[in-house]
Amino acid sequence: MNEWVYLNHASTSNQKPEATQKAIMEYLCGDRQWSAGRNLAQMDQNHLIWDTRVTLADFFGAKNPKQVIFTSGVTLSLNMILWGLLGQGDHVITTSLEHNAVARPLDRLKEERGIEVSYLACGADGALDPEELRPLIRANTKVLVMTHASNVTGAILPYWECFAIAKEYGIITVLDTAQTAGYCQVHLEDSPIDVLAFTGHKGLWALAGVGGFVVRPEIAGQMKTLICGGTGSSSHSTRQPERLPDKFESGTPNGIGILSLRESVKVIEQLGLDNIRAREEILTQRFLHGLEELPVTHHGTKVLSKTVPTVSITCGDRDCALLSQQLFERYGIVTRSGLHCAPLAHQSIGTYPQGTLRFSFGYHTTVDEIEYSLSALRSLLG
Amino acid sequence: MNEWVYLNHASTSNQKPEATQKAIMEYLCGDRQWSAGRNLAQMDQNHLIWDTRVTLADFFGAKNPKQVIFTSGVTLSLNMILWGLLGQGDHVITTSLEHNAVARPLDRLKEERGIEVSYLACGADGALDPEELRPLIRANTKVLVMTHASNVTGAILPYWECFAIAKEYGIITVLDTAQTAGYCQVHLEDSPIDVLAFTGHKGLWALAGVGGFVVRPEIAGQMKTLICGGTGSSSHSTRQPERLPDKFESGTPNGIGILSLRESVKVIEQLGLDNIRAREEILTQRFLHGLEELPVTHHGTKVLSKTVPTVSITCGDRDCALLSQQLFERYGIVTRSGLHCAPLAHQSIGTYPQGTLRFSFGYHTTVDEIEYSLSALRSLLG
Repeated sequence: MNEWVYLNHASTSNQKPEATQKAIMEYLCGDRQWSAGRNLAQMDQNHLIWDTRVTLADFFGAKNPKQVIFTSGVTLSLNMILWGLLGQGDHVITTSLEHNAVARPLDRLKEERGIEVSYLACGADGALDPEELRPLIRANTKVLVMTHASNVTGAILPYWECFAIAKEYGIITVLDTAQTAGYCQVHLEDSPIDVLAFTGHKGLWALAGVGGFVVRPEIAGQMKTLICGGTGSSSHSTRQPERLPDKFESGTPNGIGILSLRESVKVIEQLGLDNIRAREEILTQRFLHGLEELPVTHHGTKVLSKTVPTVSITCGDRDCALLSQQLFERYGIVTRSGLHCAPLAHQSIGTYPQGTLRFSFGYHTTVDEIEYSLSALRSLLG
Repeated sequence: MNEWVYLNHASTSNQKPEATQKAIMEYLCGDRQWSAGRNLAQMDQNHLIWDTRVTLADFFGAKNPKQVIFTSGVTLSLNMILWGLLGQGDHVITTSLEHNAVARPLDRLKEERGIEVSYLACGADGALDPEELRPLIRANTKVLVMTHASNVTGAILPYWECFAIAKEYGIITVLDTAQTAGYCQVHLEDSPIDVLAFTGHKGLWALAGVGGFVVRPEIAGQMKTLICGGTGSSSHSTRQPERLPDKFESGTPNGIGILSLRESVKVIEQLGLDNIRAREEILTQRFLHGLEELPVTHHGTKVLSKTVPTVSITCGDRDCALLSQQLFERYGIVTRSGLHCAPLAHQSIGTYPQGTLRFSFGYHTTVDEIEYSLSALRSLLG
């Protein structure tokens, strides 16, 4: 067993794959950390970035690698997408399970551009009726943005059905895959998704500081650029170029982060998403089963096909923050308590403002660690 | 001699200090790459980030470490600052030597918010008369933003005198230190600077993908947040918190980038900025001296105290891109040709649109490499 039992994979993956570590170290010790895309002499870095774009386009089902935009993470991606698409007086629909990475930009856009926001209600288990979307749609509804899975309850949302309805009305669809990339298969081209935001450091096992979005070209054309600057292209002009990916990639890219993304996604592809998911489902199942004997309330679904390996519980009147602290201090178990940057979700499932105690598992979590954590919980809740 | 002669330090530093490499590898191979600031159990990462904030506050002369904001780089910093400060109908003054990291956001803000922009004219050697600022100032002038040194000519701009005049009129002053951090001493507290944007991967020898800005608290209060999201604080609310640094730091931070910044800045502090500068001045002097015998035009100043170690030349009718390619292919010398993402600067010094051939030196550049490059140039130019 490791020094720690790390059960906070919904926040970030902990150790990176060996192949990723090795590639980073070689890069770091080499002498080719040159700025990308700016010089004939810098083809190595260009190649790395292009190759990662190709890998990600394949992984997320985009036709053209240029549809893959790199950012510093999913929060920046979502801001770029929402600021880029929503103008004065637009209406946007989102869900009651969103993370603040969606809720807070929308709040700012209300203030800044007078946009209006409607919330699609979700149950404690993440269930929502896609048909409830129709009455929310207005003439000025521009965007439907939703998380693929709740970072609080783990519940996977029926985005496909919702997006299919949205497309009937010509609404632009944005999916936040922060909790699902590397666990659920998502294929842009074969789906009603217009834009898909992702982050590297969670289920894709890359370093923190890299992420991006994948966008249909016709939607990219409608998106205004939020972050402008040097792109190494059209440098004669102070106008941001329109071509992809340059339109949305200003400044020096995070070379080592992009490298880590490429290497880790290759590892994931070798393992196979189905195998990763099957293994993590066993962990979730074991944990949920063990919880049944404990005086806790599980806020989520027991249907394994409808959840990522994230389990939120409350324990009667017990303070979740204190329990999380005790799990760490007495048992070396890393969990996350509180509101998980998702007040809407906690309001929606009735755990606001006290929050929950959240356990989230990864591919390298072991059944032993699950048993150990259940046993620790049993002792604490005694 | 290395495999390559890397003379493109104005774009990015190449190899990172050994101490930085070592720290990154330990971090990478450890099991503590946990999300920051979100849990009692994650104090290590909290400590790393806070400690880096303290290091940078000390380095840039900020009173309180909370004034140091981490971003993914200076381009994002400048966008956050300019979008955060400039509203409908505001007027901004900038210089004719700016990089597109300033010029392009201003262009977008013209379109989006109807701001007006005036340009302070600079000579080919970067010289500008601060008194020329006064006639540009209007009742609605909100911000003066300028680069500390040109990434094309290397010329250091007299920001202090300009900012002192701006402060007489209550104008907010923003300094882009992309080309100077790690070379010129800058001390926020003792200067007329209100906000200072920096990047990690150039003169601060950190990884690409990390940078930030340092801001006076009273100015931070006036800045609206551009990028909103989870901050691990005030998580009960969908409103972005006002407190620093959370107001401007949403999403999972780039842990490894921040670590590299801390380690590299410590190395720089141990070496001493004066020593770094003295060494790089010798290189610049030697190169400029060698150029005198060659059929080239130097676009910049020969006064070492007024330039960073960046030298731009043109060679009569010779194509700079071709020369750069030949230097690389025949001699393994990495330079950068073209417009350097700074069309304004090239217009201003009369090298638009063909651009220049730029050599930029770093602390580890050797006199041998300078001589070798001069000799290569001599051969190429016949």
